[in-house]
Amino acid sequence: MSAIIVSGGDLAEEEAASFIRKEKERHQRVGDDLLLVAADRGLDHMMKMDITPDLIIGDFDSASEQTKGACVTYEKAGVTVIRLNPVKDDTDTEAALKETIRRSTGEITLLGGTGGHRIDHLWANLRLLGYARQQGRKMTMLDSYNRIRLLEGQEELVILKDEQYGNYLSVFPLDGVARGVSVSGVFYPLEDATLDGYASLTVSNEITEQQAVIGVTEGKLLVMETRD
Amino acid sequence: MSAIIVSGGDLAEEEAASFIRKEKERHQRVGDDLLLVAADRGLDHMMKMDITPDLIIGDFDSASEQTKGACVTYEKAGVTVIRLNPVKDDTDTEAALKETIRRSTGEITLLGGTGGHRIDHLWANLRLLGYARQQGRKMTMLDSYNRIRLLEGQEELVILKDEQYGNYLSVFPLDGVARGVSVSGVFYPLEDATLDGYASLTVSNEITEQQAVIGVTEGKLLVMETRD
Repeated sequence: MSAIIVSGGDLAEEEAASFIRKEKERHQRVGDDLLLVAADRGLDHMMKMDITPDLIIGDFDSASEQTKGACVTYEKAGVTVIRLNPVKDDTDTEAALKETIRRSTGEITLLGGTGGHRIDHLWANLRLLGYARQQGRKMTMLDSYNRIRLLEGQEELVILKDEQYGNYLSVFPLDGVARGVSVSGVFYPLEDATLDGYASLTVSNEITEQQAVIGVTEGKLLVMETRD
Repeated sequence: MSAIIVSGGDLAEEEAASFIRKEKERHQRVGDDLLLVAADRGLDHMMKMDITPDLIIGDFDSASEQTKGACVTYEKAGVTVIRLNPVKDDTDTEAALKETIRRSTGEITLLGGTGGHRIDHLWANLRLLGYARQQGRKMTMLDSYNRIRLLEGQEELVILKDEQYGNYLSVFPLDGVARGVSVSGVFYPLEDATLDGYASLTVSNEITEQQAVIGVTEGKLLVMETRD
C-alpha cells in the first residue's frame, strides 16, 4: 500500500487533486491500495480538493472551528483521526509520516511540504526524505516546481526525458559525503564523483539524451528536478 | 573588512537598503570597511536600492540590456566587474562568495539568497554557509523571514531576546552528526544532545529568557531564526 500525505504548506490544489486522482486510478489498476493522509492544515487542502482522507493527524492548534468540525464529521464517517498534543517533539508532518510508515508499505509522496517563508519548515521536511529512507521507505516531495527524491548506496534512478519534472536536474549529498556519484545523459555528466564539499557543481544540470541515469555507491544523494 | 553579497533571489528592497545603510554606518563607526558585492541579478536589486556595489560578478546570461549597460557604466566609474562564462561549474552566488572571501576578511552577509520556487537554488545557497565556514569565515543568510547562521565545534552563539530575528529558533545538524548540542533560555532546552537523525525535535523553539545560548561541541549546526 502506497501513501500520499498532504501537508499544510503551499499547494496548487487543482494540480494536486488531479495528481491524487490519477494515482488512485493507477493503484486501482495494479490492485494496490493508496492511503491518503491529511497532516494538520493539509486537511484544509483536502477539503478544498474534495478528497476524503483515510487518516487525519495533527494538533490542529491553529485550525479554524470549521476544520475542527470537519474532523468530527470525518471521524463519524469512519475516518481515523489522531489528535496530537500541541506541545510535542515532532512537527505535524513528521508525526504524519511516522504514522504513514506504520500503516503503509510502498512509496510515499508528500504534497504541501514546501512553500511559505520559513526555511526551518522546509529544511525539516527535506530531512524527512532521509528519515523515510532510514525506515526503508522511498519518499518523494512534490510541488508545482520541484520533485525531490533521495538515492542511497548502490541504487540507480532513471529519469526519462519525456517524463522529467521541469527542465533542471540537480544532485546534492544529503548528509556528509556521497561517493561514486554518476549522472549520465545530461549536459554536465558526472562519473564516479565524490561530492563532499559545498560546491554547487551539481546544480541546474539538464537532461540532453533520452534518459538520465543517476547513481551513487555510498552515502545519500538528493535528486531535485525543478522548473522555474 | 566585512562584506554583504546581494544575490538575485527575492528581496524586500526597502528593508535590505535600510539594513545595508545601517551596516555601512556601523562599520564606519568602528573603522571597518564594508565590501558590497552584487551577484548577477543582485545588481538589479542594488540599482533599485540606489546602492553602488564595489564589485559586480555574474554571467549575466539572463540580464536585460539595461543591466548589461549598467555594468559598463559602473565599470567606467571604477567598480570592478567580473564577467563569468555562462557555462561554468559554480552558481553566480557561489562565484560571488568565492571572490568575496578573497577580497574581505570579516563576516559575510548574503541577501537575496532565498525566495523563488526552485528548492535546488535555496539548497545550494544554504550549503554556502558550510563552504564559507570551511574557508574560516562566518556567513549569515538573511531575508525578511529568516536569519540563518552556522555554528561549528566548540563555539557558542548568544541571541538576546530583544535582538532575536522573529519568534522561532530552530537548530539542525548541517552534515551528518552534531554532538554536544545545547540550547538554553528556550521553551524546549537541549543539553549535550546528539542530533544525528532526521527528527524535527529542534524546530520552532522559542526564546523564553533574556537570552538563548546555543552551543555545539562537534559537527556543524545550522541555527535558523524565523518568523511567519
